[in-house]
Amino acid sequence: MAVPIRVAVSGAAGQISYSLLFRIASGEIFGADRPVHLHMLEIPQVMDKLEGVAMELTDCAFPTLAEIKMFDNADEAFDGINQAFLVGSRPRGPGMERAELIKVNGPIFVGQGKALNRAADDVRCMVVGNPANTNCLIAMNNSDVPNDRFSAMMRLDENRAKSQLAAKAGVPVADVSNATIWGNHSNNQYPDFENAKIDGKPAAEVINDEAWLRDTFIPTVQERGAAVIKARGASSAASAASAALDHVNSLITPTPAGDWFSASVCSNGEYDVDPGLMFGFPLTSTGNGDWKVVEGLPMSDWARGKFEASLNELRTEREVVKDLL
Amino acid sequence: MAVPIRVAVSGAAGQISYSLLFRIASGEIFGADRPVHLHMLEIPQVMDKLEGVAMELTDCAFPTLAEIKMFDNADEAFDGINQAFLVGSRPRGPGMERAELIKVNGPIFVGQGKALNRAADDVRCMVVGNPANTNCLIAMNNSDVPNDRFSAMMRLDENRAKSQLAAKAGVPVADVSNATIWGNHSNNQYPDFENAKIDGKPAAEVINDEAWLRDTFIPTVQERGAAVIKARGASSAASAASAALDHVNSLITPTPAGDWFSASVCSNGEYDVDPGLMFGFPLTSTGNGDWKVVEGLPMSDWARGKFEASLNELRTEREVVKDLL
Repeated sequence: MAVPIRVAVSGAAGQISYSLLFRIASGEIFGADRPVHLHMLEIPQVMDKLEGVAMELTDCAFPTLAEIKMFDNADEAFDGINQAFLVGSRPRGPGMERAELIKVNGPIFVGQGKALNRAADDVRCMVVGNPANTNCLIAMNNSDVPNDRFSAMMRLDENRAKSQLAAKAGVPVADVSNATIWGNHSNNQYPDFENAKIDGKPAAEVINDEAWLRDTFIPTVQERGAAVIKARGASSAASAASAALDHVNSLITPTPAGDWFSASVCSNGEYDVDPGLMFGFPLTSTGNGDWKVVEGLPMSDWARGKFEASLNELRTEREVVKDLL
Repeated sequence: MAVPIRVAVSGAAGQISYSLLFRIASGEIFGADRPVHLHMLEIPQVMDKLEGVAMELTDCAFPTLAEIKMFDNADEAFDGINQAFLVGSRPRGPGMERAELIKVNGPIFVGQGKALNRAADDVRCMVVGNPANTNCLIAMNNSDVPNDRFSAMMRLDENRAKSQLAAKAGVPVADVSNATIWGNHSNNQYPDFENAKIDGKPAAEVINDEAWLRDTFIPTVQERGAAVIKARGASSAASAASAALDHVNSLITPTPAGDWFSASVCSNGEYDVDPGLMFGFPLTSTGNGDWKVVEGLPMSDWARGKFEASLNELRTEREVVKDLL
């Protein structure tokens, strides 16, 4: 067996984690010969329910699942871990504004950022819990773990964008590449069709319907979460979990030549994004958990306007939590 | 890409399917290069919710997921399929006796058995929906598909048995082999510790605690479903889905030499079980979807008593549905 990996998942009794944990434990993501030690983190009020999830994980008899531990505090949960999935966050209550949502989540991610100091030297942390970019910004700023080990999920948006482009073009989704979600994982994200490709050709040329791309494709991707809730009567869970696995997989697998993937990472000033902001960029990886922003992609003035709107939203979110940074 | 596989899942908007569909679509079970065509079957009342599940499957951008179709009738859903997962069944209502549950499910599986006549020539059908053995018996008896293509799931019980033995012995679950669940997927199943092995040695010798094996191990496995419901506030879903994947995987992968797996299949009189009854046996497969009962396993008188109790329960269930066979 390969060297074990210690994986923490917060919000472990929630719906996204229920779709995520079993796929992590099965060996699908870190390898069929790599023992997984699961550290499941939850709030004290739902530890009973978490025990039920642990029972089911045990009942799967996964050969790769070496250990299951449950915690009601981040300090213990993050001790010695190699990978964190920060899935848990306070959901938006009735009538709650986005700024309020950001404020109530802030302290959780301050604590989790500090707790990550107890992780293994090679720890990497990805954030799913919304508002993901700003939660990740807070954790990163409260941790001694290097900034480039933090990322927030844009992959669900990227996958949605790819599947919408594929459906419109009438091609298999695997034919769509080079999809970027710029900026914030919110309704103000910018799903970039100008640089996306279908079967190696510019997506906009293949689809050849600028009105559809601007007025249907973009809002469909931006508002897909609400559409799923309306149809399913519950928010996206299995697709969010699948995107979280894709996100980590893209960081531990060499990126295919000529392609890239989207994640929110700490800006070093690329594309004139404020250094230090967590922003959705196109990335490549050598497969060692590292990443590099793909630079020099062209953008029309129209696209740059969409990009700036998302950037400004992230600046506003940072302002709301500035006392925590 | 390999030749596509057409997979039907009934009860597709339910909780077990929500954990099953994404793992089928991801290529985990039928291969990373094999396109999957999903036929999702539900009752007309929940087609909206099913649409939400389809949206999430689309949103995963699985390269292996070639097509998603939704159906509210089995005849269309099973047209041309190679594999059926019959997950859906009417749940037990308040105060409903097991005989009543069997009766209300009967007509569903009569219809599904007939609908399987429209499947591909190589179709195989596995049943998860409870009472699984008898539902499968009904489908088999109402179909022209050969009897040996039908099976019902005992694998969740087998996985539970393995994990309980591993925990007691303090060994990784992969060290436990040769676990059999004889008979019915019900509280009267018989989880066989006499023939199970731990690290190649008899489990009973390694554990060396006959009282625990008889009085704790067996009821723990038999009543695990209720214990999960109590802890989690919902019935086993992800672990049931995982077991369904293990079940199919064991039929399409050569069984490791000296080991076996458990599934309920049509008796040919092995171990003096009535020919034609769906009964949980130890099986081996050459990996082509075929199976053979492992014969000649010894059983103490005590064990044979447990075995007979489960056999008698299945005979009683068959009596309840005899008009449908």
